[in-house]
Amino acid sequence: MIRNATAPGASPFAPAVRLPSSRYMISPQDALQCVLAVAACLDARVVPLDDACGLRLAEEVRADRAYPPFPRAMMDGYAVCVADAGRTAEVVGEVAAGQAAGPPVEEGKCAAIMTGAVCPPGTEAVVQKEHVRREGDLVQLPETIAVGGHIAAVGSECPAGSPVLKPGDTITPLAIAVMASFGMESVSVRPAASLAIITTGGELVSVGEAIQPHLIRDSNGPMLSALARRMGLDRPLAMHVEDRLNAILAALEQAAQRDVVLLTGGVSVGDYDLVPEALRQFGAEVLFHKVRQKPGKPLLLARRGRQLIFGLPGNPLACHLGFSRYVAAAIRVMQGLPPAPQPLEGRLTGPVSYRGSRTYFGLARAERMPAASNLWDVTPLCGVSSADLFATCRANCYIEVPAGVAEIPPSEIVRFTWIPGDPR
Amino acid sequence: MIRNATAPGASPFAPAVRLPSSRYMISPQDALQCVLAVAACLDARVVPLDDACGLRLAEEVRADRAYPPFPRAMMDGYAVCVADAGRTAEVVGEVAAGQAAGPPVEEGKCAAIMTGAVCPPGTEAVVQKEHVRREGDLVQLPETIAVGGHIAAVGSECPAGSPVLKPGDTITPLAIAVMASFGMESVSVRPAASLAIITTGGELVSVGEAIQPHLIRDSNGPMLSALARRMGLDRPLAMHVEDRLNAILAALEQAAQRDVVLLTGGVSVGDYDLVPEALRQFGAEVLFHKVRQKPGKPLLLARRGRQLIFGLPGNPLACHLGFSRYVAAAIRVMQGLPPAPQPLEGRLTGPVSYRGSRTYFGLARAERMPAASNLWDVTPLCGVSSADLFATCRANCYIEVPAGVAEIPPSEIVRFTWIPGDPR
Repeated sequence: MIRNATAPGASPFAPAVRLPSSRYMISPQDALQCVLAVAACLDARVVPLDDACGLRLAEEVRADRAYPPFPRAMMDGYAVCVADAGRTAEVVGEVAAGQAAGPPVEEGKCAAIMTGAVCPPGTEAVVQKEHVRREGDLVQLPETIAVGGHIAAVGSECPAGSPVLKPGDTITPLAIAVMASFGMESVSVRPAASLAIITTGGELVSVGEAIQPHLIRDSNGPMLSALARRMGLDRPLAMHVEDRLNAILAALEQAAQRDVVLLTGGVSVGDYDLVPEALRQFGAEVLFHKVRQKPGKPLLLARRGRQLIFGLPGNPLACHLGFSRYVAAAIRVMQGLPPAPQPLEGRLTGPVSYRGSRTYFGLARAERMPAASNLWDVTPLCGVSSADLFATCRANCYIEVPAGVAEIPPSEIVRFTWIPGDPR
Repeated sequence: MIRNATAPGASPFAPAVRLPSSRYMISPQDALQCVLAVAACLDARVVPLDDACGLRLAEEVRADRAYPPFPRAMMDGYAVCVADAGRTAEVVGEVAAGQAAGPPVEEGKCAAIMTGAVCPPGTEAVVQKEHVRREGDLVQLPETIAVGGHIAAVGSECPAGSPVLKPGDTITPLAIAVMASFGMESVSVRPAASLAIITTGGELVSVGEAIQPHLIRDSNGPMLSALARRMGLDRPLAMHVEDRLNAILAALEQAAQRDVVLLTGGVSVGDYDLVPEALRQFGAEVLFHKVRQKPGKPLLLARRGRQLIFGLPGNPLACHLGFSRYVAAAIRVMQGLPPAPQPLEGRLTGPVSYRGSRTYFGLARAERMPAASNLWDVTPLCGVSSADLFATCRANCYIEVPAGVAEIPPSEIVRFTWIPGDPR
């Protein structure tokens, strides 16, 4: 059975794909396309200017008045008439930045003026203070003075009403400065997605609880929260629930208003894997639940209205890949960003061996090669098992190895993708 | 006069430089070296694990116990003895993840087991459920079973007590997972610097206030705050003060406990430029106050104990450069990070003309060339004046043009540096 992707307000990046049946294992490429097809830009939200940096604009920004709003001195010096070049002029006043225009300037009369100040009426040029000789109230002006010299004319940088930023533009710190200049205290943006994390699994205890020999501490919850916050999201709603259908359902209800829900554990085909059933009872449509990849074959995507629900594996490395490759893409599309930065190329510092029949996403550490520009050394970090966090925890990127490749020798050029929000 | 750099706890990145006299204009290279020489790693601080991602570790992290702490099943299947290969075994129990070890396994007897569960005593291998045929309480096992198959042995990923992370390591989301596994609720890190921003200038009104024709709104305060927060700093203490010595002094006193203070405006040689005098009265040592660069020649660095105080120009583009090139480097060193990522190379999409006698730092927008790896298109964004925010507000990087260069033609390869925390 093939269903059409009919996401409400589909993202501009969403390709026109047909969703795969949820019954079959699909390729990592199809899984990503499915995520992009159902993730939709979030509704615009007005946020304080102070919280807007890094987000995408959802409105056009126009100049509230001309900039500069007055003829502005660009240097400390004297506001003069050009006819006085080579002559002596009397200093009839002084204008600091922030003062209303000073006494008018006319032939034979000038005003001392500070950078940023309003040029008095009649000013034809500003002469730098280093270029005059002053004695008492008289200044000796240079032989040549260009009309308009060191003056930024009204509206020369930006006419009143002109559009400066458009919907979809990323809000940089300079864009914050522009909007502050225009008197904007808040701005309409594509907000960061709101997230809930529901960890399942009877073997898990929280970080602060007492441990027993047959139990382990939950590491996926803190890890997913860190990944999300590195991407600029607010602290997620975090819950841990028992492996009981009703407990999972109750947690889903509690997270019903979140844009994205991440469940960890309980998504494979084991007898205790209750997540698919809980999602059906919650009214969510399961779009796929296995991906031909290693690690992280059991990976589930469901949606309920505009909410996306990911079922991630309990294995922390598989969970990390599920977030990095799929959840991050959905979050970026919801924010109006391209799904993922393009991969970069780097040189392997050691071999990669992999003989599996699924695409392998391997953690690695990319570092700039000293003195060489645009080239990266990529060190594969292979643990002793597919769940070995310890050997891989300094990773900052993934390399992708196609199924069936036996070994990639060292020095080979490979493509790599940063871990989302990587603090490199 | 030349002074020795005697920063307390100088950073490992600090070169042994002699500080220049504060009386002279210095080169952008010397100014940066001076910043690096006086910026020192902040004292370690213990923060909740949830707030540690992206920071540098200030302690060694060792495994609290062996990992896995028990022989862990890596697949859903059956815990068996290898002697039963090719034979039928009776299912004598079932172990889910989180259960204490089940009934012992011996020849002819096996246990159903879930991924992540404790292997019962006697288990020699786990056989995937897909590889057996089960009828009632009997399972037909495959012809060959490898000893240890699909079992992660105790301590195989990480022996008890072994060091996993060391001081100076960047805390990635995977490192958060490691520390959560170890039961760490908090961790000792190099904290992000605390910042205060003091804007000066009688021409400035705050974003929400009524405007008059000869006044402009403060854009530097919001811009600097956005830059700092993109770098992961907490919301800065922000103050606006009048151009009066006592007002500036009072603000400096109020910001005395902050690691870094940014003053904007009042640093050039105009009669109203009171910042240098205020710093002297505050007891700060001025290290330099002019840099041979455009924009942003008036740039001041002072220190008082371990506090660094930057006097940035009022011109927003000059202020932005001052933060991007100098303040950001200090903040990174204080956090134990390298002062700045290495520049990248990209291809100019248009010419850059500049004939000045100072090094020119030009705002530009770098974008990955489609389909080509590791190559960037760099579009210079030149406004109509040195204070034109409007033409440059989509910039994400700087290009550096040496003094005296007349024109760089399009298609030339140039080096560029990201704006700190750039949301590219």
